[in-house]
Amino acid sequence: MTAVQGSERLTTFEDNDQKPVGHGRMLRKEDPRLVRGRGRFTDDIQLPGMLHLAILRSPFAHARIVGIDTSAAAALPRVRAVVTGADLAAQGLAWMPTLSGDVQAVLATDKVRFQGQEVAFVVAEDRYTARDALELIDVEYDVLEPVIDARRALAPDAPVIRDDLDGKTNNHCFDWETGDKDATEAVFAAADVVVRQDIVYPRVHPAPMETCGAVADFDAVEGRLKLWSTTQAPHAHRTLYAIVAGLPEHKIQVISPDLGGGFGNKVPIYPGYVCAIVASIVTGKPVKWMEDRSENLISTGFARDYIMRGEIAATRDGRILGIRTDVLADHGAFNGTAAPVKYPAGFFGVFTGSYDIEAAYCSMTAVYTNKAPGGVAYACSFRITEAVYLVERIVDCLAAELGMDPAELRLKNFIRPEQFPYTTKTGWVYDSGDYEPTMRLAMDLAGYAELRKEQEAKRANGELMGIGIAFFTEAVGAGPRKDMDILGLGMADGCELRVHPTGKAVVRLSVQSQGQGHETTFAQIVAEEIGIPPADIDVVHGDTDNTPFGLGTYGSRSTPVSGAAAALVARKVRDKARLIASAMLEVSVADLDWEKGRFQVKGDPGKSVTIQDIAMRAHGAGDLPDGVEGGLEAQICYNPSNLTYPHGAYICVVDIDPGTCEVKVRRFIAVDDCGTRINPMIIEGQVHGGLTDGVGMALMEMIAFDEDGNCLGASLMDYLIPTALEVPDWETGFTVTPSPHHPIGAKGVGESATVGSPPAIVNAVVDALAPYGVRHADMPLTPSRVWDAMRGAPRPPI
Amino acid sequence: MTAVQGSERLTTFEDNDQKPVGHGRMLRKEDPRLVRGRGRFTDDIQLPGMLHLAILRSPFAHARIVGIDTSAAAALPRVRAVVTGADLAAQGLAWMPTLSGDVQAVLATDKVRFQGQEVAFVVAEDRYTARDALELIDVEYDVLEPVIDARRALAPDAPVIRDDLDGKTNNHCFDWETGDKDATEAVFAAADVVVRQDIVYPRVHPAPMETCGAVADFDAVEGRLKLWSTTQAPHAHRTLYAIVAGLPEHKIQVISPDLGGGFGNKVPIYPGYVCAIVASIVTGKPVKWMEDRSENLISTGFARDYIMRGEIAATRDGRILGIRTDVLADHGAFNGTAAPVKYPAGFFGVFTGSYDIEAAYCSMTAVYTNKAPGGVAYACSFRITEAVYLVERIVDCLAAELGMDPAELRLKNFIRPEQFPYTTKTGWVYDSGDYEPTMRLAMDLAGYAELRKEQEAKRANGELMGIGIAFFTEAVGAGPRKDMDILGLGMADGCELRVHPTGKAVVRLSVQSQGQGHETTFAQIVAEEIGIPPADIDVVHGDTDNTPFGLGTYGSRSTPVSGAAAALVARKVRDKARLIASAMLEVSVADLDWEKGRFQVKGDPGKSVTIQDIAMRAHGAGDLPDGVEGGLEAQICYNPSNLTYPHGAYICVVDIDPGTCEVKVRRFIAVDDCGTRINPMIIEGQVHGGLTDGVGMALMEMIAFDEDGNCLGASLMDYLIPTALEVPDWETGFTVTPSPHHPIGAKGVGESATVGSPPAIVNAVVDALAPYGVRHADMPLTPSRVWDAMRGAPRPPI
Repeated sequence: MTAVQGSERLTTFEDNDQKPVGHGRMLRKEDPRLVRGRGRFTDDIQLPGMLHLAILRSPFAHARIVGIDTSAAAALPRVRAVVTGADLAAQGLAWMPTLSGDVQAVLATDKVRFQGQEVAFVVAEDRYTARDALELIDVEYDVLEPVIDARRALAPDAPVIRDDLDGKTNNHCFDWETGDKDATEAVFAAADVVVRQDIVYPRVHPAPMETCGAVADFDAVEGRLKLWSTTQAPHAHRTLYAIVAGLPEHKIQVISPDLGGGFGNKVPIYPGYVCAIVASIVTGKPVKWMEDRSENLISTGFARDYIMRGEIAATRDGRILGIRTDVLADHGAFNGTAAPVKYPAGFFGVFTGSYDIEAAYCSMTAVYTNKAPGGVAYACSFRITEAVYLVERIVDCLAAELGMDPAELRLKNFIRPEQFPYTTKTGWVYDSGDYEPTMRLAMDLAGYAELRKEQEAKRANGELMGIGIAFFTEAVGAGPRKDMDILGLGMADGCELRVHPTGKAVVRLSVQSQGQGHETTFAQIVAEEIGIPPADIDVVHGDTDNTPFGLGTYGSRSTPVSGAAAALVARKVRDKARLIASAMLEVSVADLDWEKGRFQVKGDPGKSVTIQDIAMRAHGAGDLPDGVEGGLEAQICYNPSNLTYPHGAYICVVDIDPGTCEVKVRRFIAVDDCGTRINPMIIEGQVHGGLTDGVGMALMEMIAFDEDGNCLGASLMDYLIPTALEVPDWETGFTVTPSPHHPIGAKGVGESATVGSPPAIVNAVVDALAPYGVRHADMPLTPSRVWDAMRGAPRPPI
Repeated sequence: MTAVQGSERLTTFEDNDQKPVGHGRMLRKEDPRLVRGRGRFTDDIQLPGMLHLAILRSPFAHARIVGIDTSAAAALPRVRAVVTGADLAAQGLAWMPTLSGDVQAVLATDKVRFQGQEVAFVVAEDRYTARDALELIDVEYDVLEPVIDARRALAPDAPVIRDDLDGKTNNHCFDWETGDKDATEAVFAAADVVVRQDIVYPRVHPAPMETCGAVADFDAVEGRLKLWSTTQAPHAHRTLYAIVAGLPEHKIQVISPDLGGGFGNKVPIYPGYVCAIVASIVTGKPVKWMEDRSENLISTGFARDYIMRGEIAATRDGRILGIRTDVLADHGAFNGTAAPVKYPAGFFGVFTGSYDIEAAYCSMTAVYTNKAPGGVAYACSFRITEAVYLVERIVDCLAAELGMDPAELRLKNFIRPEQFPYTTKTGWVYDSGDYEPTMRLAMDLAGYAELRKEQEAKRANGELMGIGIAFFTEAVGAGPRKDMDILGLGMADGCELRVHPTGKAVVRLSVQSQGQGHETTFAQIVAEEIGIPPADIDVVHGDTDNTPFGLGTYGSRSTPVSGAAAALVARKVRDKARLIASAMLEVSVADLDWEKGRFQVKGDPGKSVTIQDIAMRAHGAGDLPDGVEGGLEAQICYNPSNLTYPHGAYICVVDIDPGTCEVKVRRFIAVDDCGTRINPMIIEGQVHGGLTDGVGMALMEMIAFDEDGNCLGASLMDYLIPTALEVPDWETGFTVTPSPHHPIGAKGVGESATVGSPPAIVNAVVDALAPYGVRHADMPLTPSRVWDAMRGAPRPPI
């Protein structure tokens, strides 16, 4: 099943711009624009008469609003409007539904529930005046006790955060469970060895380079709203604006222009978007809202914040029998800005990892706290990141318990290639995989045996060197699971391909790029199928008026879903082209061979027509076969029959300075299998980015709060993200196990490295600290935490 | 076959915005924008850093360019570029092909060939500077003798206009003929009566309210050209720019925003568009070019300019046997800006009128003259206007010769309803018609018999009252005749319909409105088929990036071609909706009835789903039937199997002041049959506009030249167009003879009144002057021409 494997070239590429084949290394088509400063981001939108909006945010985590006096702000010259929650409430707009089916305040009316919550907004002729006016708004607060720790939230005496919102008498959000509890209990009871570990995945922030923002332009004459916004899901947003605000859907155009990263942060509908829309309607002018960095960090979608207990049962010789886990999830004040799924499906899908086991069970309780709404789709929306971290951590704990090499333990328990498609103990069907070669390749590239020898030598010398392994299976390409679909908008994505008379083409996607290179990758996918050079294929996305409906880009779904749609729609066009070629060459379709870019007569290859010839004929007055319409285009709506399951083997080597406790990632070997590889250079870029994410989460990043609910990560001075200085030269490799149900066998790769790297790094650090008896330490493994772990006194994890 | 007939209500309407049915009177959806000044025309486009282009034009009709000195212009502050024909020639861009397969100079290099020809252009920071700089360009001309009269053009000693362009040694442009010359000769030889009349249709100008212009914005980084231009055919323009300029077609976006009228004037590619594109490439800035009124009148597409000889053969009792005609056509200096057809197809198609005759023959010779390029699609592109004028004039001449009432003569010779589809003697197939009821209705509405009695009484009193009849059959909806397709781009048009999740919809057209009300009519066509209210259906057009390919709006082809496409694509969507409804209602499709807007179970109408319910299901996670893709949309490319043939009977009553010779149109009765009527209010608007056109052409308008080739109609002070003061209250009626091959039976109506009204008015004037022995007088029938005609001394016709 594994067709190819190899390691990557990092710096060379072939430019196949003008070759009529698609797959392969080529420079990104969007880069000339982006690197020359000609990108067009939301904050680049300048409209005549445009006003600027600024949001007043709560300084308290939990407080009752006693009164708001806006008179001084409204009186400031150049201020056009000051709007409070009461104003919105009068229009029925104070609350909005969230993608996950909860509600969230647009502007607070009764209480503020987290520090940074939106309280009022000012619209002014310039950004500076709008900001200045915020300081003139006088809000009287009655401060309440905040709930910051999820473990405190369910205490009988905990303050109730949503008391006057939905009549709740506690802070309980939801309970879910999956798997067979009794069967798992039985397996655990009979096992030789059971290892249990409490593991915290701290709250982190996707921190995209571009913050969130919008420009709303409501035309009262046409009743038409044009909204540029930093969204990963323009179509879903449009439909929700239509349903919620009562604006007719065909009169709403959501444009997601160039985006400076998203990583899930830009999936939710934020109050700021709604404020900008309201402001444009109220003032009759275009209105721009752009967050500053602090606003983005304190109020927009967070991720993780899981307090987990992992348990693993095994035989003495290392056969894993069962996995059990219990999760306490902190969703903040509103289960507000999460992925459009009812439950953390990905966690349930892959928490048993890449291992063939007998029983599994997971229970989960989520609570409300006085923190910003959490749960965004930050690699990965379905909480796969947390699940992979949990399972790879406890497998390492088991290896330590058994005294086995962690690579050997994994190799012993992998699902075997002949077991695919493999149904997990919680009912998810892994589509394809061949894990051992992937693991072996990573070990080969790492020189695993030599590393262990080196480690042994260094330990003897008192040096702290660690080798960490993580092996992950991801579930991506949100597909046909109706139970995941909370919006009722399905998981299918449209795609359209139009070939112009001269043989150039345009493909229209439902998904939106936040920097992943869709303009290149999708041109390549289409080129491969239709034989038009990628340079001749324009990719249009991110504009609801001009692209087909779909749910957007998150959960690595662009290639698994829209990529499939693009390949299939190109095949539809090729099928039509074949009919026209048959008329042009005066032979039956059965007598035609397809060579990339042309149909030629079997046995007479000199007699052929190019796809460009066919395009002109399709638009011309020449005869077309009976029943064949003019034009050369097609559309599709693709609903995948299953998720795709990329996998990977990561090996991390760290050195820890025993004096400063600083962790240095010396080497990182990442072997990914995302099925068919469209543009290896772009895949590498995605992997490099995700690995860097992992260094951040493992070693540096955490959104912490003090006991009053003050966010301690409100700037990039406080919330540390990795730079080139913190990361090694990545070493990557690949295997190829095509997805059997995807038309070109491709899986998603956008989140793999973010998912797989934190456990590899943490496992390496814990491995390095093994001489100190350390079995676990919670992220982020800052020098002070390493110091504590070495001394057996771990700090409170969050 | 005639299903309905009646006369029109002129001022009332039902607002069916919210009814899920399409056809009927409703206010135009575009009007709130247009009447409130929120239309967005080309000259409204303002881009940051935009420069302005002005064109230097030749003051001479025929001259050799000896030299051009641009140094003073280039030195003027705020001037960014000065470009001459030599500069363009260096880039291979001095010449461009025309839609009719000739070439035209972008900027003159060797000679200027008409007054107003483009010689150089200036790009400056503002329009005023650009204009001022033109006066600093020093062009040295060697003036040559011009050829102004088409009859002079073929003289052996005539100057050769295109001598150094294509090696021509004379001014001959083309010859065409159609029909059976010998059979016609035989019919004429054997006929009782033969009438012959020389008839001139003078050169006129469409004179749209908005002149031509463009804004070109070339992005060198993306290699992408965005061109707003005043074009009726954005897709054809794009493809031609791609082919001619070598720009990749997918990198060209042609946007035709709101247009202030077109009438064929905006079909051609003008040198100004190309200049704007070149200017943007050269300067790296957006560049606007907008003509002033004088430039529009002297250099853009003219129409008519036919010197015709008409002959008609008949029996003594009024049976028409044959029609023969010879035409000398003046195409100006370039057969440059005509319709995209090889020959004057419409003329050939309908010059035998609405009559069942035995033989017909037409010969035509076209010449080049030192006038601006002519032959635009001004109602109608295919020279139907000229043909209808010719045949209706000579039928009246025959009536005079026979002493028959002209209505009686027509009624006697009409093609009979059972003869449809009727193949003319030149091989064109009239799709449907029932002429007598149309004629009778017009006569009834006019009170024809009473009018004749009134006329008799007035004549006895020395008063000049005339009654003119014209009956026309038009050929519209440019369809499948390959011999008409010079571009090789066919005559098919695409259409796309997308229904959003909430049941609102957008329909995308290949055709572009110049004011005809497409946003309303096409919403109604779709509404009628799919049951979504017209208000909930957006119509998108005029943007090549976001609409399917098609040839544009001319020759009344929007409804016959794109209207058919819209109805059929809506039926495709309805067919898909039926499948989904069957799953939702759990019955077979055969058990479903379609009631506008919903499917209901046969025999249980309470059990039903609306199209809106179906739209949400189509986008949702609910089950869809096997093999049915998600989404609710479809596309089509429609190639009509035939042209459609609207017809009409027009009766005009004029009074002429015998002292001043002023013609007053007292009444005008227009009965039109355009098949199925979609929005009667819009049809009336089209008819009123065309009738007003007819008053202009019949009585006021002519582009004349002096002997040096100076255009005498270079302003609206000199080129007179009718206003509300010159026209009567129009009286309209209708019959309905559906087209058998059009899915909703509709024909085009945009040009009918322009075609049909001039002969009715001229026939009325000639009828009024019958007591003076006048049998013919050439348009425009100004007081001086009437004066001359009354005195038997007609002026030279042109």
